[in-house]
Amino acid sequence: MAIITLTTDFGLKDYFVGCLKGSIYRELPDAQIVDISHDISPFNIHECAYILKNSYKNFPEGSIHIVGVDAEPTPENQHIALLIDGHYFITSNNGIIGLITSEKKPQKVVEINIPNPDNGSFPVLDVFIKVACHIARGGTLEVVGKPFNALKELREFTPSVTDDGNKIIGSIIYVDNYGNVVTNIHKNFFEAYRKGRGYELAARSTKISRIHNKYSDIINFDLDRSQRKGAGDLLALFNSANYIELAIYKSDLNTVGGASTLLGLEFRDTVTVSFL
Amino acid sequence: MAIITLTTDFGLKDYFVGCLKGSIYRELPDAQIVDISHDISPFNIHECAYILKNSYKNFPEGSIHIVGVDAEPTPENQHIALLIDGHYFITSNNGIIGLITSEKKPQKVVEINIPNPDNGSFPVLDVFIKVACHIARGGTLEVVGKPFNALKELREFTPSVTDDGNKIIGSIIYVDNYGNVVTNIHKNFFEAYRKGRGYELAARSTKISRIHNKYSDIINFDLDRSQRKGAGDLLALFNSANYIELAIYKSDLNTVGGASTLLGLEFRDTVTVSFL
Amino acid sequence: MAIITLTTDFGLKDYFVGCLKGSIYRELPDAQIVDISHDISPFNIHECAYILKNSYKNFPEGSIHIVGVDAEPTPENQHIALLIDGHYFITSNNGIIGLITSEKKPQKVVEINIPNPDNGSFPVLDVFIKVACHIARGGTLEVVGKPFNALKELREFTPSVTDDGNKIIGSIIYVDNYGNVVTNIHKNFFEAYRKGRGYELAARSTKISRIHNKYSDIINFDLDRSQRKGAGDLLALFNSANYIELAIYKSDLNTVGGASTLLGLEFRDTVTVSFL
Repeated sequence: MAIITLTTDFGLKDYFVGCLKGSIYRELPDAQIVDISHDISPFNIHECAYILKNSYKNFPEGSIHIVGVDAEPTPENQHIALLIDGHYFITSNNGIIGLITSEKKPQKVVEINIPNPDNGSFPVLDVFIKVACHIARGGTLEVVGKPFNALKELREFTPSVTDDGNKIIGSIIYVDNYGNVVTNIHKNFFEAYRKGRGYELAARSTKISRIHNKYSDIINFDLDRSQRKGAGDLLALFNSANYIELAIYKSDLNTVGGASTLLGLEFRDTVTVSFL
Repeated sequence: MAIITLTTDFGLKDYFVGCLKGSIYRELPDAQIVDISHDISPFNIHECAYILKNSYKNFPEGSIHIVGVDAEPTPENQHIALLIDGHYFITSNNGIIGLITSEKKPQKVVEINIPNPDNGSFPVLDVFIKVACHIARGGTLEVVGKPFNALKELREFTPSVTDDGNKIIGSIIYVDNYGNVVTNIHKNFFEAYRKGRGYELAARSTKISRIHNKYSDIINFDLDRSQRKGAGDLLALFNSANYIELAIYKSDLNTVGGASTLLGLEFRDTVTVSFL
Repeated sequence: MAIITLTTDFGLKDYFVGCLKGSIYRELPDAQIVDISHDISPFNIHECAYILKNSYKNFPEGSIHIVGVDAEPTPENQHIALLIDGHYFITSNNGIIGLITSEKKPQKVVEINIPNPDNGSFPVLDVFIKVACHIARGGTLEVVGKPFNALKELREFTPSVTDDGNKIIGSIIYVDNYGNVVTNIHKNFFEAYRKGRGYELAARSTKISRIHNKYSDIINFDLDRSQRKGAGDLLALFNSANYIELAIYKSDLNTVGGASTLLGLEFRDTVTVSFL
């Protein structure tokens, strides 16, 4: 049985998510439904893309991903279903697909056109679920729509590089559950410009000269406990999505604070890497 | 395998929900458990009813809905299990059933009476789960209790109409994840009194003369982008539950605000419709 | 199919939980995955232990519990997998096992040692999921690691008793979704020292002379409604985990407040029982 994942900005309190699940089970009693996230900031396509981009590949090929963010169809944002990188996505053509699967080319894209759609304010229920169940039953994309080749491109927040190639100017694209701030500087991008040089990472008044691979790498376990770095200390690392991240070791936004609150860093703030 | 849904005010952090699911799987390894919501405001029967009323019908007939809000049995709030509209509900007799299924008549109601119940503070675990598993295995209601005909009626927040039939006086019954405020004025009620007339919707100092069917209906796509209405603009619509709702297009309570915060509207505030 | 539970401090917004579930389903399409909680306060071992200790036993024997809190392996906190009380746990050796299963002796413990582990910042995905799937497929612990006998002991917050045996000095170990405050005084501990005597419970300036078994026990249903205790009144009870808890009847932290806010009680504050 195919897996159907849900990524929305519906929150977990309202009746929205319950409706979706009930409707899927009514059509497909054995469906495997997985919540990726329902806490996307409302209408935040970039945030949704960051989360989906870094989770969809963990699912088996053939999984069906419903994107319930900014999903109302408009003359400019058609409803589309597509197969890309072995995965199905059902979404509004709001630019999110390019952000999720940047370099990949879709194998097939259709503009959804199902008979007698309920043209109301809950298209994820009225349209996306029907399409998802159709695909889950082994149906083809051709049945639910006609070929479509006008995938909207949304500008990704990509870092820039100075002409002399000595400085990367990136920005913060996400703040996670721990208050760790994630930049748009990918490890591959960093290494391509680094060319083996030393570097200094800067964000506001903070400067860091080392990027680790995991959080506890800042601790020198050869030292006595009282001498070690630890909880509350700042570090940079390539996070599990391979982006440069600034973190406070063992942070908690509700008590001691995290990188976002302690360093005063927010979504879209600048982070630079200067090569030495 | 029957579906068992959970709607509670337990929140998602504590051990409560984990206990429920573990206990169900221990009895029924193949159970299909669905969270409708665990974020009901504590003891808020009306909020719970709004969420269940607008989601239970999406589930297949025969689904079993556990209502874990205000569930302690008292001499006045018996534990009951019932079959209504093709669905099973297990709840305390606190008035919620009438709010969920207003016009429907129950096909069968029993007062739960199971042997050696644990008379503690977690009856949803100790009693409701046992009853749900019994029903899920195909058991009858008669086995878990005796016929009961004293279903408590809780006053629904229904709108009133002035004697001359020219004005509906409703109120806000729910604020959703986007800060959109939902009134108790159902589309059918509105149309019954409207009789084709024009109307003006009023909430505090806000007046609206058009009720849309979906959020993006406020945008005139024939206009140039710079001329259009859009994010941040106010609208009214019949929401997906068919109630009149006031919304801010593309609102976000954590950043730009929503209808509730921007218009200063709260649960129980008055919203009127004057027919012209 | 074995059950795999997840207890983490990842929150529900980020891509972390989606990655875990996708990876499990990729290996085990029929896995039964259960979220116990993802809202543990970051790195809070004691809070995580309180939640797991009071929920794991509800699951069938043979269930596999992944503990995703403070999970990075360090020279001091090895990755371990163990069988204890009929349940499997996969965790970092950070002291949590002793807190969850205090008096129980593990049947088997191994230090995890899988080939080519990804030594990054997401070991729950890179290591724990692989081990969980191995066990779920019926694999033995011996295959994923070598015997280990250095389980770390973390000091539990246990109450103390004055030399004369007349006073228990406990503390608050948890604040739940309703703002109810849970002490570390277990019913068995209380009864062992009580020896049938009367008692007075004290927390800050609050004094209580009766510990109930459920919340509604404070209401005398023989009285007229206007005379009864009810919403907003304070009580103490043995909660569903059998610890003494102070609660406000029908509290709501977002509106009327709860025991934590109304009595000014926080994690680690002192609560005493004086025997009379």
